[in-house]
Amino acid sequence: MKRARIEYMGDVLSVVINDGGNALTQDNQEIPQGQFTWLSPIENPGTIFALGLNYADHASELAFEPPKEPLVFLKGGNTLTAHQQPSYRPDDIEFMHYECELVAVIGKEAKNIKREQALEYVDGFTICNDYAIRDYLENYYRPNLRVKSRDSLCPIGPWIVDTADIKELDNLKLTTHVNGELTQEGNTSDMIFDVPFLIEYLSSFMTLKPGDLIATGTPKGLKDIHPGDVVRCSIEGIGSLENPVLSENDFYARR
Amino acid sequence: MKRARIEYMGDVLSVVINDGGNALTQDNQEIPQGQFTWLSPIENPGTIFALGLNYADHASELAFEPPKEPLVFLKGGNTLTAHQQPSYRPDDIEFMHYECELVAVIGKEAKNIKREQALEYVDGFTICNDYAIRDYLENYYRPNLRVKSRDSLCPIGPWIVDTADIKELDNLKLTTHVNGELTQEGNTSDMIFDVPFLIEYLSSFMTLKPGDLIATGTPKGLKDIHPGDVVRCSIEGIGSLENPVLSENDFYARR
Repeated sequence: MKRARIEYMGDVLSVVINDGGNALTQDNQEIPQGQFTWLSPIENPGTIFALGLNYADHASELAFEPPKEPLVFLKGGNTLTAHQQPSYRPDDIEFMHYECELVAVIGKEAKNIKREQALEYVDGFTICNDYAIRDYLENYYRPNLRVKSRDSLCPIGPWIVDTADIKELDNLKLTTHVNGELTQEGNTSDMIFDVPFLIEYLSSFMTLKPGDLIATGTPKGLKDIHPGDVVRCSIEGIGSLENPVLSENDFYARR
Repeated sequence: MKRARIEYMGDVLSVVINDGGNALTQDNQEIPQGQFTWLSPIENPGTIFALGLNYADHASELAFEPPKEPLVFLKGGNTLTAHQQPSYRPDDIEFMHYECELVAVIGKEAKNIKREQALEYVDGFTICNDYAIRDYLENYYRPNLRVKSRDSLCPIGPWIVDTADIKELDNLKLTTHVNGELTQEGNTSDMIFDVPFLIEYLSSFMTLKPGDLIATGTPKGLKDIHPGDVVRCSIEGIGSLENPVLSENDFYARR
């Protein structure tokens, strides 16, 4: 089941997206695609965890050693935006790249959970594009705020897919297309630390809570992104998350 | 005015604390101290920013160079706990120390704010004890999650003091007492990056939102903390935040 949040006629609705791409409301009204606005699928995001260098090919692309334990950093809630909403390229930077990532949405409080039980604590999976501003990436210990906590630079969605509907979590193809051209391709089989491992790891020293998000890192395939580009991140069995990129001025003028 | 949140007879109340230390409810009922439970003074905390090495004497104590720009990291909401609630010392560590810090609570959305206007965006100030587990502090770029995002290891409160009630923000004495003994002493005059600077800096590349917290770093005076200790962090003009420390087992058994 694909669970989404939309805005329709001024109301915020929790809906299910059917095979035709339309939204089914809780009282079974069908709202055709194109007639509603997508919202972030997570109503109350908690702590946003993100992984650095969790695909070996991407670490190599950035000329870093693959990490020996998970490189986890936190992101601000200001970074989240929905499917089809704009992101922006800051004016004064040299290089900004997308990162197509599988996101685990925590559904139950989790402390000291072993990997065998870990997926029971996941509400479902979605996609994010965890943009990075590479200018400030001094070393791999420091994905600092200017690299990873800009407004709108973590589109998420369009929906949450139930865990049970994902056939092989460790064998999902990820792709990014920029203006229709394939620029990033990978597979969750190349993840260094998989979702069950990450839940065991994090919950060994802190309590995970419903609404916490774990963005699990991205495979290789960097490309500099500019205003006017449209970036589509897709994950097999989940869907596609697409967002246009504006200039900094245009972005803040629209807010 | 000292604004607090308390639990009393099963209700969560927003109150004002009077000079006698009692709570005044919105309908002017006075609840004597000792008869209510303190809650975190921030009902819906947003992004929790914290500063590393923002007092030159503390950087020197840890044998790091003072930073040339703010070293900001984010903390999870799981770290917050209230005045008089327990924190814990993890079992498998070598050294854990308190950090008495002045916290600015953001009151209005802030983007591209200059330092001259910065305090208009602050709802008020409180105190936190931003505990650090020093075992994992590999370098100053990486206050990783095990150092800074453990459950309950950022007590906050007891209340928020209005900005207008603080006479000299850049001249407030900070002290920490462990079991009644003075172990940390400093003054906000020794801050490298002050609150107006931090708001200008952060809001230059991201939007600050109501409920966001900025913990502004700690002066020198480290001491290893153990179960059974009671740690009191005080800031002149604000008050005192006191918390007992339990063992990991006792802490999670009580939850």
